[in-house]
Amino acid sequence: MRMVDLIIKKRDGHELTNEEIKFWIDGYVKGEIPDYQSSAMNMAIFFRGMNKREIATLTDYMEHSGEVIDLSAISGIKVDKHSTGGVGDKTSLVLGPMVAAVGGKLAKMSGRGLGHTGGTLDKLESIPGLSISKTKEEMIEQVNDIGIAIIGQTSSLVPADKKLYALRDVTGTVESIPLIAASVMSKKLASGTNAILLDVTVGEGAFMKNMDSARELAKTMVEIGDSLNRDTVAVLSDMSEPLGLAVGNNLEVKEAIASLHGKGPEDLMELCYTSGSIMLVQAKVCKTLEEARAKLHEAVENGKAFEKLVQMVAAQGGDVSYIKNPEKFEMSKNIVEIRCEEDGYIKAINALEIGISAMKLGAGRETLEDVIDMSAGIVLDKKIGAKVNKGDLLCTIYTNKSKEEYLPVIEEIKSAYKFSKEKVEILPVIREVIRK
Amino acid sequence: MRMVDLIIKKRDGHELTNEEIKFWIDGYVKGEIPDYQSSAMNMAIFFRGMNKREIATLTDYMEHSGEVIDLSAISGIKVDKHSTGGVGDKTSLVLGPMVAAVGGKLAKMSGRGLGHTGGTLDKLESIPGLSISKTKEEMIEQVNDIGIAIIGQTSSLVPADKKLYALRDVTGTVESIPLIAASVMSKKLASGTNAILLDVTVGEGAFMKNMDSARELAKTMVEIGDSLNRDTVAVLSDMSEPLGLAVGNNLEVKEAIASLHGKGPEDLMELCYTSGSIMLVQAKVCKTLEEARAKLHEAVENGKAFEKLVQMVAAQGGDVSYIKNPEKFEMSKNIVEIRCEEDGYIKAINALEIGISAMKLGAGRETLEDVIDMSAGIVLDKKIGAKVNKGDLLCTIYTNKSKEEYLPVIEEIKSAYKFSKEKVEILPVIREVIRK
Repeated sequence: MRMVDLIIKKRDGHELTNEEIKFWIDGYVKGEIPDYQSSAMNMAIFFRGMNKREIATLTDYMEHSGEVIDLSAISGIKVDKHSTGGVGDKTSLVLGPMVAAVGGKLAKMSGRGLGHTGGTLDKLESIPGLSISKTKEEMIEQVNDIGIAIIGQTSSLVPADKKLYALRDVTGTVESIPLIAASVMSKKLASGTNAILLDVTVGEGAFMKNMDSARELAKTMVEIGDSLNRDTVAVLSDMSEPLGLAVGNNLEVKEAIASLHGKGPEDLMELCYTSGSIMLVQAKVCKTLEEARAKLHEAVENGKAFEKLVQMVAAQGGDVSYIKNPEKFEMSKNIVEIRCEEDGYIKAINALEIGISAMKLGAGRETLEDVIDMSAGIVLDKKIGAKVNKGDLLCTIYTNKSKEEYLPVIEEIKSAYKFSKEKVEILPVIREVIRK
Repeated sequence: MRMVDLIIKKRDGHELTNEEIKFWIDGYVKGEIPDYQSSAMNMAIFFRGMNKREIATLTDYMEHSGEVIDLSAISGIKVDKHSTGGVGDKTSLVLGPMVAAVGGKLAKMSGRGLGHTGGTLDKLESIPGLSISKTKEEMIEQVNDIGIAIIGQTSSLVPADKKLYALRDVTGTVESIPLIAASVMSKKLASGTNAILLDVTVGEGAFMKNMDSARELAKTMVEIGDSLNRDTVAVLSDMSEPLGLAVGNNLEVKEAIASLHGKGPEDLMELCYTSGSIMLVQAKVCKTLEEARAKLHEAVENGKAFEKLVQMVAAQGGDVSYIKNPEKFEMSKNIVEIRCEEDGYIKAINALEIGISAMKLGAGRETLEDVIDMSAGIVLDKKIGAKVNKGDLLCTIYTNKSKEEYLPVIEEIKSAYKFSKEKVEILPVIREVIRK
């Protein structure tokens, strides 16, 4: 078998056999197939796609390219959640404790994203003392103890995805549905979870810019999960504007804390209640979505959801005084309000532009070497649909950058807003639920 | 400028600017842009194509990625010929001396193809003593002296093409019209010629399998030549069956010698007369195609064309006694006739399969390290359209391989033939001429 023949086969629109996919993935992980052949294959897949069998096979070989975690030492159905990413996405920090408070078991391994703003791990690390480095055994013990752990992905997990994703990132093949689906699902499967809730974001701030492609990605991943015997459900959630109000690491942790007290932004709360209900039914902790939703509300109201976050932070070595007194979190030196320059309704807050602006304020990495400023970011005051008058507060920026550096960013943030004289329809945060 | 952004731009169907193409080619030649990004770009170009301006720019930067030969020390219009390759293609060895005999100036630099059978350089090297290694100055002196030189491409010529072609070869992007066009034309332009005759082969034994793609490639190259101020004409020639009768290095040299004596196969002679006439008009040696064709016939008949080959071989250190007495050429140990097993008409002689079979008999390289057996190959007795009876000679194989090795090849050669009970139409060797 020659890799060039497989590239040509895919390029010309033919299916790859299971053996051919194995030859590629095994050879690539071993270093026998060079990057330049894998990048050509990725681009051919970008244009030609893959059918269900090919994607399931690719996922399977990627999953088994490294260690596969055995969570059987944790009793019950383990359920995990994965988001395809967005701006202001602190869902894991709210949803995780809520679901664990009702009795779900979450052993979550996160990767450290190279997004505009930090990933879940970065957000957690804005809590002083908190460690995301745990052994598999420590993670299992923590989940058996308190029902939840969120730690960093071990380096032995899915080496095929690590290599392929790094390659795709620099060769223009990130935006391929078969490759995204296999990447996400291979990681989730290798992390040993029994059931998977996928949050497929859609809109300007997400990989998937429109409903059609988001639906296709969601269906593809649900089918992979099903064909590999994991109960998989996907919600399509709106990412045309940032999720919630806060964008930036400790700003988002503070918003997550408020949400666990029941005081979160409406869209974030709704996303967590809907996703959490599905997860509790997947975990067979609840029989119906209605029962699950009622229990989640109860856990928020009686403080158990918040208490679960406190337990998790404590178990991972974090200083819980920050969680109990969020005003302790480090504050940026420069806090600047951005005000509205016209009357009307907010029609758009471009999530991608807000994310890039937050990164420029210090909240994200432009390169892997960059150090994140945990206090930097943007807090929106209003969301799409809000009626505004000239002079009203739109958002506040937090940064340690100099005035010279942040002034142009303010102009970029302003240009992320669009206004309308007419009343603007507000889209629900949950656009669709996709099941097998 | 980031290479990944250029890949994405092309992937999404947008035009690259001249600066962007320069950034790619310069960076790739310097080693600043890695193979894996160039291979993704090549695949994106395979799917999205390039417009005229992009291809002309790509050609121009590739041409100037290394040395550009200055042939101004040779008086008159220098004219060169390039074939996109085929099986049994010994045209340069016949056409070159013919055109030079009438007064054309040919300073031809050839690459060493990795085709099924040897390239022009390999064929020339089957003449004992002949050297294809000459300096630029020696080449110019030889052309000023006798009107023709065929030498190896210097390593300083079009490094961008060398790197890109080697990469395309192993990443499934050879068959891209913009990339083929830029590769061919950058080499021709860098070799300093004023006018270019392109022989675009079409059929099973060629890169271009059908007339539409051959026409598109020919038009693309003629447009590039025109936009970069070189008089460029393309002939589309048939490569569904091998050209002429001989396939294999010294077998083809012997056929070339016979052709210069006026005793060549009809298709080869016709291709040389048509191409040669165009070249002589391009070189302004003749005013009309009719005048040029008459002079070419005259040069063959009065022996001047043959004498030109003798002069060239002598000038390049070759033993002319082989040219004058072709029976001196080394003969293979095993010479086996293949005979017809049915009555009817020859409907097809698959050129690609004949080429691969010749390679397996020793006439070509499977890998760059292989040593060519100069005497090995296949000589057809009849071509498409011929009426045959059971027992008639179809072709003869020449090989130094063992019986065990060549017997399976004989079966493959037989399967390259298709027969018909009905009379078969014979296509003309020249299918079309493409001019600006």
